[in-house]
Amino acid sequence: MSPTRASAGAAPYRAAQPDGSNPTADNPIAPDGTPQLDRDYLIPARQGRAVRLKRGQRLTITNPQGHQVCDFFAITANSPAEFLSMEHCRTALGRIFVKSGDRLVTNRRRPLIEIAEDSSPGVHDILIAACDHTRYQQLGCTDYHDNCADNFRMSLAAIGETPRHVPCPFNIWMNIPVAKDGTYDWAAPVSKPGDYVVLRALEDCIAIMSACPQDMTSVNGVGTVPAELVVKVGE
Amino acid sequence: MSPTRASAGAAPYRAAQPDGSNPTADNPIAPDGTPQLDRDYLIPARQGRAVRLKRGQRLTITNPQGHQVCDFFAITANSPAEFLSMEHCRTALGRIFVKSGDRLVTNRRRPLIEIAEDSSPGVHDILIAACDHTRYQQLGCTDYHDNCADNFRMSLAAIGETPRHVPCPFNIWMNIPVAKDGTYDWAAPVSKPGDYVVLRALEDCIAIMSACPQDMTSVNGVGTVPAELVVKVGE
Repeated sequence: MSPTRASAGAAPYRAAQPDGSNPTADNPIAPDGTPQLDRDYLIPARQGRAVRLKRGQRLTITNPQGHQVCDFFAITANSPAEFLSMEHCRTALGRIFVKSGDRLVTNRRRPLIEIAEDSSPGVHDILIAACDHTRYQQLGCTDYHDNCADNFRMSLAAIGETPRHVPCPFNIWMNIPVAKDGTYDWAAPVSKPGDYVVLRALEDCIAIMSACPQDMTSVNGVGTVPAELVVKVGE
Repeated sequence: MSPTRASAGAAPYRAAQPDGSNPTADNPIAPDGTPQLDRDYLIPARQGRAVRLKRGQRLTITNPQGHQVCDFFAITANSPAEFLSMEHCRTALGRIFVKSGDRLVTNRRRPLIEIAEDSSPGVHDILIAACDHTRYQQLGCTDYHDNCADNFRMSLAAIGETPRHVPCPFNIWMNIPVAKDGTYDWAAPVSKPGDYVVLRALEDCIAIMSACPQDMTSVNGVGTVPAELVVKVGE
């Protein structure tokens, strides 16, 4: 497989692995996704990982390079039909962005994830769909391109779970400034190397994270390549 | 069943039927949802209806009172897993609102519905989740309240279809002005009596419409009660 890019002058597309495949489905953090506490888990560039969280546990997502977006999803432990839902969050919050202290809700309007800490300037997105195969085709890619929708599916497949659909993600560090006229830009993150977000699970759930492989817009920085993330679970 | 409202001074809640039940599931426009062309179908206040559309057909939704919001959904004819998706529309459009001429896309980023005509000032919403049982409980309702999520499910049940989940709707005539700081208001519609929107099906699909029963915020007008809609399908 040899993914190619149509963007004139862009750096050659680099897949998660040299052969163009993405090993997310074969690399769970543990067979059932249960983490060892206080252990750092790497999410390699362009890949995803699913992590089971118990109520009250804190998930720290660190951005070593500072410019990397994390597409974040969560589904409740006992029902794949209940998931973190951005349209319900917007309704609950009364705004189209999140900030530290917010309690993010599911499609059943139950609080599931709290933004407990945020070392970054707090610029995140709750408006934009996860990138997927079609998105890259529309951007000019002519072969497979790693994408957050497949990372979501593969991360769950890796721990034996099958999602019903791909919800709209909470795009941590993604910078989508909305103008007064309702248009928006695909801007570079304003986070810095080492920034982290701490999310607290308000119910038992599965957190799914994708180190967004987007390299055909500026959402993972300008002059940079998609990078890794590090996650850790603590009490 | 006797739905009640907690809002001080608000008019008593009036359900779709005097006994508090909602007859949407028992009143399809036809057993399989296929419309007679150029015939007006009433969507009574607080109820929903599903209508099968063939590629190229035009669906006219009329707002007789002018202040009534229509929660609009669409799923493709052959796959309940493919549906009109607001987060994918925002990505495709580059803005957080729609306008006449827009082609709205599915979760697979395929154009499904075109806004062919709009007699109203064009103020619609693509940010807010469908109202549901929990929403009304959170607003202070202590018993069942008609809601767009149940209308969506019942409209499809009425024609023998079972959805996987309730997608974020295209809220026609719903006025959610977003301020520069990202907060928004629940404002009254700016549409006028008799306003209509014409939607063209770009693929065979099922359109699902709910005459939004919201009477605990201002989205269906101030000093008004939820009203009916009229739909018609033509070539």
